[in-house]
Amino acid sequence: MTVRFGLLGAGRIGKVHAKAVSGDANAKLVAVADAFPQAAEAIASAYGCDVRSIEAIEAAKDIDAVVICTPTDTHADLIERFARAGKAIFCEKPIDLDVARVKACIKVVEETGAKLMVGFNRRFDPHFMAVRKVIDDGKIGDVEMVTITSRDPGAPPVDYIKRSGGIFRDMTIHDFDMARFLLGEEPVSVVATAAVLVDKAIGEAGDYDSVSVILQTASGKQAIISNSRRATYGYDQRIEAHGSKGVVSAENQRPVSIEVANAEGYTRPPLHDFFMTRYTEAYANEIASFISAIEKGSKISPSGADGLAALVLADAAVQSVKEGKLIRIG
Amino acid sequence: MTVRFGLLGAGRIGKVHAKAVSGDANAKLVAVADAFPQAAEAIASAYGCDVRSIEAIEAAKDIDAVVICTPTDTHADLIERFARAGKAIFCEKPIDLDVARVKACIKVVEETGAKLMVGFNRRFDPHFMAVRKVIDDGKIGDVEMVTITSRDPGAPPVDYIKRSGGIFRDMTIHDFDMARFLLGEEPVSVVATAAVLVDKAIGEAGDYDSVSVILQTASGKQAIISNSRRATYGYDQRIEAHGSKGVVSAENQRPVSIEVANAEGYTRPPLHDFFMTRYTEAYANEIASFISAIEKGSKISPSGADGLAALVLADAAVQSVKEGKLIRIG
Amino acid sequence: MTVRFGLLGAGRIGKVHAKAVSGDANAKLVAVADAFPQAAEAIASAYGCDVRSIEAIEAAKDIDAVVICTPTDTHADLIERFARAGKAIFCEKPIDLDVARVKACIKVVEETGAKLMVGFNRRFDPHFMAVRKVIDDGKIGDVEMVTITSRDPGAPPVDYIKRSGGIFRDMTIHDFDMARFLLGEEPVSVVATAAVLVDKAIGEAGDYDSVSVILQTASGKQAIISNSRRATYGYDQRIEAHGSKGVVSAENQRPVSIEVANAEGYTRPPLHDFFMTRYTEAYANEIASFISAIEKGSKISPSGADGLAALVLADAAVQSVKEGKLIRIG
Amino acid sequence: MTVRFGLLGAGRIGKVHAKAVSGDANAKLVAVADAFPQAAEAIASAYGCDVRSIEAIEAAKDIDAVVICTPTDTHADLIERFARAGKAIFCEKPIDLDVARVKACIKVVEETGAKLMVGFNRRFDPHFMAVRKVIDDGKIGDVEMVTITSRDPGAPPVDYIKRSGGIFRDMTIHDFDMARFLLGEEPVSVVATAAVLVDKAIGEAGDYDSVSVILQTASGKQAIISNSRRATYGYDQRIEAHGSKGVVSAENQRPVSIEVANAEGYTRPPLHDFFMTRYTEAYANEIASFISAIEKGSKISPSGADGLAALVLADAAVQSVKEGKLIRIG
Repeated sequence: MTVRFGLLGAGRIGKVHAKAVSGDANAKLVAVADAFPQAAEAIASAYGCDVRSIEAIEAAKDIDAVVICTPTDTHADLIERFARAGKAIFCEKPIDLDVARVKACIKVVEETGAKLMVGFNRRFDPHFMAVRKVIDDGKIGDVEMVTITSRDPGAPPVDYIKRSGGIFRDMTIHDFDMARFLLGEEPVSVVATAAVLVDKAIGEAGDYDSVSVILQTASGKQAIISNSRRATYGYDQRIEAHGSKGVVSAENQRPVSIEVANAEGYTRPPLHDFFMTRYTEAYANEIASFISAIEKGSKISPSGADGLAALVLADAAVQSVKEGKLIRIG
Repeated sequence: MTVRFGLLGAGRIGKVHAKAVSGDANAKLVAVADAFPQAAEAIASAYGCDVRSIEAIEAAKDIDAVVICTPTDTHADLIERFARAGKAIFCEKPIDLDVARVKACIKVVEETGAKLMVGFNRRFDPHFMAVRKVIDDGKIGDVEMVTITSRDPGAPPVDYIKRSGGIFRDMTIHDFDMARFLLGEEPVSVVATAAVLVDKAIGEAGDYDSVSVILQTASGKQAIISNSRRATYGYDQRIEAHGSKGVVSAENQRPVSIEVANAEGYTRPPLHDFFMTRYTEAYANEIASFISAIEKGSKISPSGADGLAALVLADAAVQSVKEGKLIRIG
Repeated sequence: MTVRFGLLGAGRIGKVHAKAVSGDANAKLVAVADAFPQAAEAIASAYGCDVRSIEAIEAAKDIDAVVICTPTDTHADLIERFARAGKAIFCEKPIDLDVARVKACIKVVEETGAKLMVGFNRRFDPHFMAVRKVIDDGKIGDVEMVTITSRDPGAPPVDYIKRSGGIFRDMTIHDFDMARFLLGEEPVSVVATAAVLVDKAIGEAGDYDSVSVILQTASGKQAIISNSRRATYGYDQRIEAHGSKGVVSAENQRPVSIEVANAEGYTRPPLHDFFMTRYTEAYANEIASFISAIEKGSKISPSGADGLAALVLADAAVQSVKEGKLIRIG
Repeated sequence: MTVRFGLLGAGRIGKVHAKAVSGDANAKLVAVADAFPQAAEAIASAYGCDVRSIEAIEAAKDIDAVVICTPTDTHADLIERFARAGKAIFCEKPIDLDVARVKACIKVVEETGAKLMVGFNRRFDPHFMAVRKVIDDGKIGDVEMVTITSRDPGAPPVDYIKRSGGIFRDMTIHDFDMARFLLGEEPVSVVATAAVLVDKAIGEAGDYDSVSVILQTASGKQAIISNSRRATYGYDQRIEAHGSKGVVSAENQRPVSIEVANAEGYTRPPLHDFFMTRYTEAYANEIASFISAIEKGSKISPSGADGLAALVLADAAVQSVKEGKLIRIG
């Protein structure tokens, strides 16, 4: 079976998914839609597909699934429309920045029986998948303490910050998902601290750029998250899971692994400086997983519920900073 | 000038200091006292010094300084007695488990003008000193986020736990001091989570074995501490300071640095399994720093005030866990 | 400009190049030829190209370049035929196992003015390229001592060994090329030792499986090569260049970079176990470089002369082992 | 039993052994002799021992063993004198630069039944000992290929070079011993290349500064040695043993193990810059092993025969460079 795709949104991340779909032997990119015709044309020409309107894709009989890469504030509406249209849906995170809206959207998905996958790409990084497998294989025993370090090479423009929902909903949300992925048990409390250390303009926009979070589960397992909008040495992405029998970690990835030594010491090049080069394989694996789940009719993960759970943790973190206390979940 | 020493307490840590003092060209071990005559005799015979009573050491004209390695509940009294006797004092941490008692003791030290050094040995680890120097040299810019991972190879006996003041005052206190050492700015808030994941008996004794802490300073700098009473792979002691211009870290130390590769992968031996072998150099450097400060009449660090500051953070962490909220300091 | 390709040979390495050509925006795979029609059909169907005979490709007006992936004993003949047909030629190493035959073939290439690239893929590995760049940038000063460690995960079948020309011409030849790439000066002497330590059948076939080589240039620079047909831990591929100002090295690559620690120590997964997964990027870069050189009319490297130079070193190594002495080149 | 020591030679390495002997619970430094009275006095005062003449030490009834740290050209004579005087002898390498003289000396040692240990300190480095143990435990199967990289931070003065016997007898000799230690089988052939790349004055003194060696045993095992009198990044000392079941290696040691990352990359400090700091533990272990062997009456290793074997390999390397051929041993 070949899964036939429509792509909604032809921007930066849209291109990534267009390439992944086109390169997958079990999928075919049929059409692309974008508010900017030129962006859609570029993808259509590169991968030999049609340019169509969203409405046309919605109505198309030759399209089985869509990839939603449009602006965040359109996600929930599009999910609902395509769920009703009977398409399988891959949607970039987040479903929405508002928990109530996400819940309403998930309700529609459930009612229509649509397949929905939410784009937490890091779960598909081969190194992080290997960490998860070590845990699943029982090699570190029961997970006890998870540590996630996640720092961006630099802060996004303040305009982006303003629309982002804030650092916890925009950036930490990936780490909340990763914590859930590694803990294997739902967090029941969140406590966070936050500060503006990188760029005052971020503070003036009402957001933070340097935050720390502790999650705890009912059985006492803890996950620590450290985020910064700055990392001069590249895109810093490390995870560690400490358990009763041992510890497993995934170190940073760098594009070139050489070392030069001289009188000043031993120097290795910086890390990847961009999430797309860091997570190239993750993006490809993610779409492959979506395609495979559609083909086999198997369970899709991460689901809408996973998207919701991470957002709930993000909201709790915001509240924890505001109120200076630990917030209980659920 | 040779600094002449009396050693109070001839137990495990007393032996470490006896060796350090004896091996220092600017110091001489004159006498040792211990409630168990055999323990004192062993040190006296190994290093060629007298066995004397505490009273005799207090009154001795041939002794300039004492090293206090007796049980915790005697520290504050002994500090006061030897401060009044005009001796320079090195005291193993903590001064006392009670903040009020520590403050009273420090007051006596100040009134008598005595020199007091508190045994936060990790500040003298050559690797951690090098991290501090990188910060002092401005190589990472302003410190923003500190991460401290500190895990013991195994839990101490429950009897010890009961007398220890609890994990925050006994174990995390070293990390509170390290956080202050690295942040270069006083924490103004503490938030902590805690659980019993390693040994139920520890919980039954009213303590925890797995804890996470976030400290924050007035300017927003944050330090994260992760502690466990269990680490199957050895004594896990890592620090990292992330700043505006870069990041500096000290990795774990292992007694033997070889690597064996075969079909199962590449394997390096476990870490040191004991704090004394891990921090051998730190203990020697610590006493050398004390001796040097006495000789030169220079400022002693870490001081009684440092001992107090770490204990205040520990108390705040206890309170944070109990009340589920962030605790403001000072 | 789009470079239009014919592929000769649809085996294992042919597939790698078919994929690389098809994925390159500046190239198009037009036709494939193979003695086994099914193999050619598989590639034709996967990449949408024709199946043609070698003669048809030779005569084709819609083909600018060929990739030769046929058995070694056909290489020299095919190079000559396609040079005369006016095609640009990429040929897998070696041109031939006989130096005289290689020289004759290169003569034809020169007379026809054909473009010829020889497939020393390792020069295009991003890590090894970075090592070369460090040298070019003067960061290690003058290269003095090169160390190349190259070990296969396991020995090939004895049937392959018999047709291979022996370990020096089949396996070490890559390292001879790498030594030339890194030394930046031609070796003038070769000395080698060799033994059968892995598999007696290899010895019975007249070959070795464990060899060591020292090359030396006129100015005294030295390169050491260590080869084994066995490495239980994966495909071991390391290079190091030591110079007057420093040293640069490229460490092994592994498919998954995680680490698990427990009471037995810290373990990372084994290396890649296959040259195709280890050098995936190198193969793609290699063809891209060939395409780019054709487009721009720029110099092609590595050239037929590079192929010859490496073979001359291999022959010298064979002679050195046989005669127990250092062999002068040229 | 306490082993009572006389120290012959109070120079740089003499001080190292004086400290090691004094710090060993089973030994006592009784007397020191040196042609320069001030040097002897300095050690006598630091460790509380006598200054005596060599004759007095030879005749002394309160001395069981001597450590010979005098200039190389006195070693063989002193070994013979003290062997006849019935003392146990630890002698810094080499016994002599002349094989015939070494053989004559060893004959006297055998005739007198004296205990003689030769100072190949690297065998006692904890990391190299651990490598040897991995081999002994069968973890890498049969050793096949050994790689030794040994580079000095800088060249010694030309005056030293002239008296040294040349790089193979002075520097590589340690690596010859290490190769024998790791191969577990005697080399039967030696081939070497050599050049002057670091300092022309070394060449003018008739020596080399950059050399490569391959040793081979009767069963075909090979050891490669790479030496340079220059390494801008510190004292480079690496060993690797590759076997039928795996590979084991000992990486370089550095005094401080931190890492700083910024936009230029990840940098670790240089290596130790001096053999005495690099091999501090090795020197202490070496003397402890000598003392223990005397106490227990057990076999001493490395012996005079080990000293001879390494020198024979060094001579063969010199001859190999001169004659451009492989030299058979024995």
